[in-house]
Amino acid sequence: MRPNVDGQRVLADLNALRAIGTYKTGVHKPSLSPEHVASLAWLEGRMREAGLTPTTDGIGNVLGRSGGTGARLLAGSHVESQNYAGWLDGPLGIVYALEAARVINRDAAYGGAAVDVVAFCDEEGHFGHFLGSRSFVGGVSDADIDAAVDRTSGRTMRKALADAGYAGRPRVTVEPGRYRGFIEAHIEQGDNLEASGQKIGVVTSIVGIWQFKIVIDGVQNHAGTTRMAIRRDAGVAAVKLLADLHDIFPRHIGPRTVWTVGRITLEPGAPSIIPGRAEILFQIRDDDLATLHRLEGVLRETAAAHAANGPCPIQVGKLRTSVPALMDGGFQAAIERAVAHVCPGKSTRLPSGAGHDAQVLSTVMPAAMLFVPSIGGISHHWTENTADADIITGAEVFVAACAEILIA
Amino acid sequence: MRPNVDGQRVLADLNALRAIGTYKTGVHKPSLSPEHVASLAWLEGRMREAGLTPTTDGIGNVLGRSGGTGARLLAGSHVESQNYAGWLDGPLGIVYALEAARVINRDAAYGGAAVDVVAFCDEEGHFGHFLGSRSFVGGVSDADIDAAVDRTSGRTMRKALADAGYAGRPRVTVEPGRYRGFIEAHIEQGDNLEASGQKIGVVTSIVGIWQFKIVIDGVQNHAGTTRMAIRRDAGVAAVKLLADLHDIFPRHIGPRTVWTVGRITLEPGAPSIIPGRAEILFQIRDDDLATLHRLEGVLRETAAAHAANGPCPIQVGKLRTSVPALMDGGFQAAIERAVAHVCPGKSTRLPSGAGHDAQVLSTVMPAAMLFVPSIGGISHHWTENTADADIITGAEVFVAACAEILIA
Repeated sequence: MRPNVDGQRVLADLNALRAIGTYKTGVHKPSLSPEHVASLAWLEGRMREAGLTPTTDGIGNVLGRSGGTGARLLAGSHVESQNYAGWLDGPLGIVYALEAARVINRDAAYGGAAVDVVAFCDEEGHFGHFLGSRSFVGGVSDADIDAAVDRTSGRTMRKALADAGYAGRPRVTVEPGRYRGFIEAHIEQGDNLEASGQKIGVVTSIVGIWQFKIVIDGVQNHAGTTRMAIRRDAGVAAVKLLADLHDIFPRHIGPRTVWTVGRITLEPGAPSIIPGRAEILFQIRDDDLATLHRLEGVLRETAAAHAANGPCPIQVGKLRTSVPALMDGGFQAAIERAVAHVCPGKSTRLPSGAGHDAQVLSTVMPAAMLFVPSIGGISHHWTENTADADIITGAEVFVAACAEILIA
Repeated sequence: MRPNVDGQRVLADLNALRAIGTYKTGVHKPSLSPEHVASLAWLEGRMREAGLTPTTDGIGNVLGRSGGTGARLLAGSHVESQNYAGWLDGPLGIVYALEAARVINRDAAYGGAAVDVVAFCDEEGHFGHFLGSRSFVGGVSDADIDAAVDRTSGRTMRKALADAGYAGRPRVTVEPGRYRGFIEAHIEQGDNLEASGQKIGVVTSIVGIWQFKIVIDGVQNHAGTTRMAIRRDAGVAAVKLLADLHDIFPRHIGPRTVWTVGRITLEPGAPSIIPGRAEILFQIRDDDLATLHRLEGVLRETAAAHAANGPCPIQVGKLRTSVPALMDGGFQAAIERAVAHVCPGKSTRLPSGAGHDAQVLSTVMPAAMLFVPSIGGISHHWTENTADADIITGAEVFVAACAEILIA
């Protein structure tokens, strides 16, 4: 079955959201900024037009509930953006979900089955870490909100919610048993689809992200008067450890593992002072939990060996972990059936290297994601884009996949 | 000849300077701070008591001129400190010079020979790079002073000079032919003397410092969605280059070379973003100019090889160089004759790994330095110290060395 998707309506909605908080060809729409709040008000209006009943809750989530008595599916993503970033990261999944509700909910052919639409607040992490979707599944306390602060502006989340007019509202949590599951569309943010000429990525899993901080203690001293032989240079120890890890890690990784050293800080960081301390942010992502555990072991063993054989103690601390989230197998098959209707042969299965609200929803219901191609693999930048034709193809597959799930 | 040095007077003067701007057991006395200016006023008073005629000039240098008609030697160092640092770095050489003037200038046995005492402003580089001593030898323009800004407080040097009451004063420059040379005493700031049980370091040369900035251009991207194979990670390139340099440099250095990576900056420096740019501060010090040139070549060749074989362009920029300064051979011999009188066998020749005003003075007259032991090799920290007995021995050798030079 190929649902009657209105591609121009999808593009018009995406451009309407881009027109609120425009930055170059993208947007600047941080969580709970006036532009974000205005976008949520726009979304409420579009939900009502689609026959949904919208509620914006006490953490800035917007849930549009359908009437009807048949099977229900929850679909959505997020509206806010990274700072000075792209127009599709978030809104694509929102507008696809709106289109699915518009096409399916009032069509008698679906026998009362319907799509609810949701926009989760702060997926981009201005205030925290998936606060909106975690609130929806019951994982955020009032104290968590009390403590949350915008990392760019310093505004508290309480102040931001009050400024938006959301203070004091109840928070909406998931209604048990209401949904067959959750589906989210998103731009790929990588170049796999573009490089292989595919139009749809069927997400198999969302990677676990394990973030470590490595701290090396040296002895700060004068860079002119301290002989090389007696130095305990934390920076040298950091470079040697990292060079070694770059050699060793490839022998232990899985086929999709990525790992990144995002920051190296030497203290005090002056040209003529031997660094007394080094701090390294070291991140590993993989969709296989056993691989993550194995790589943590490699990291810790390598660091311990360097500490034992070098002049500086080394501590490896774990800042944050997340469990890889498996996407539902039945939903993946439903997306592939939709592809077979819309653009046969044009999909590939792949894991998501980035985190998404779907990983949070997957803890309480079956969840799925589909990706559309990112031009040049670019995201988190105002040049982020997807060809209009690919956006429309993605919408057709998304709505067809919702239908496949609802009528299964 | 063993001059009649008053060790307790030397210690009392050093403690009097420590009492102005005390920080724990050290001092916080940045250039032209109220505490520095008060210390210079104190110094003027001590100069007058010693029969010297003091002039504090338009850049904060204090020169105490002796009368007399015989041979003259210039002696001194600096009064200001690094931020929150030690009590001896600078003041030791000032008080030794005062003591030399007190002992020698009014003693008929020296036939009218005399020591002039000088305190050069900003040896510690709060506003620039040896501005006081370079002004004294004619190497600083008014425009240089106009441009100078305190790197900690942001106060301009013009404002600081006005606040001190020095604005509009002429600057004093060296009087050609007046001096046999310049001599400066200093704490070693390293552990050579302590480790070898010596009491006096006879400085052979002051190292040249060559400061480089290495810039590596990568491509910033998402740390989750960008496959390892297509990354152009500036941080990885930096680590590989530095690890290689740590392996290669030891094969090319001289016996006294030191080199230091004081800072590594990855941009943007976030846990989930592949670094798009790396900046490295790389410093080489040696007392041999040919060695410095050779090591610059090794650095440039290694960086070029990494750029050619890796995914990231690498630029090596030279921020600053200085020519190694040779200390006068006759003066070194005079210091060793003084050691033979005061503490026979207790000296060693060594280069200075740190920069000092003596390297600037050596461009216009014979210059010499002697070091006393630093406990634990510590300096630029409030715990910096030297045993009282070693301070007194150093004063005796210093005054005897001045006498040796003046009567030669």
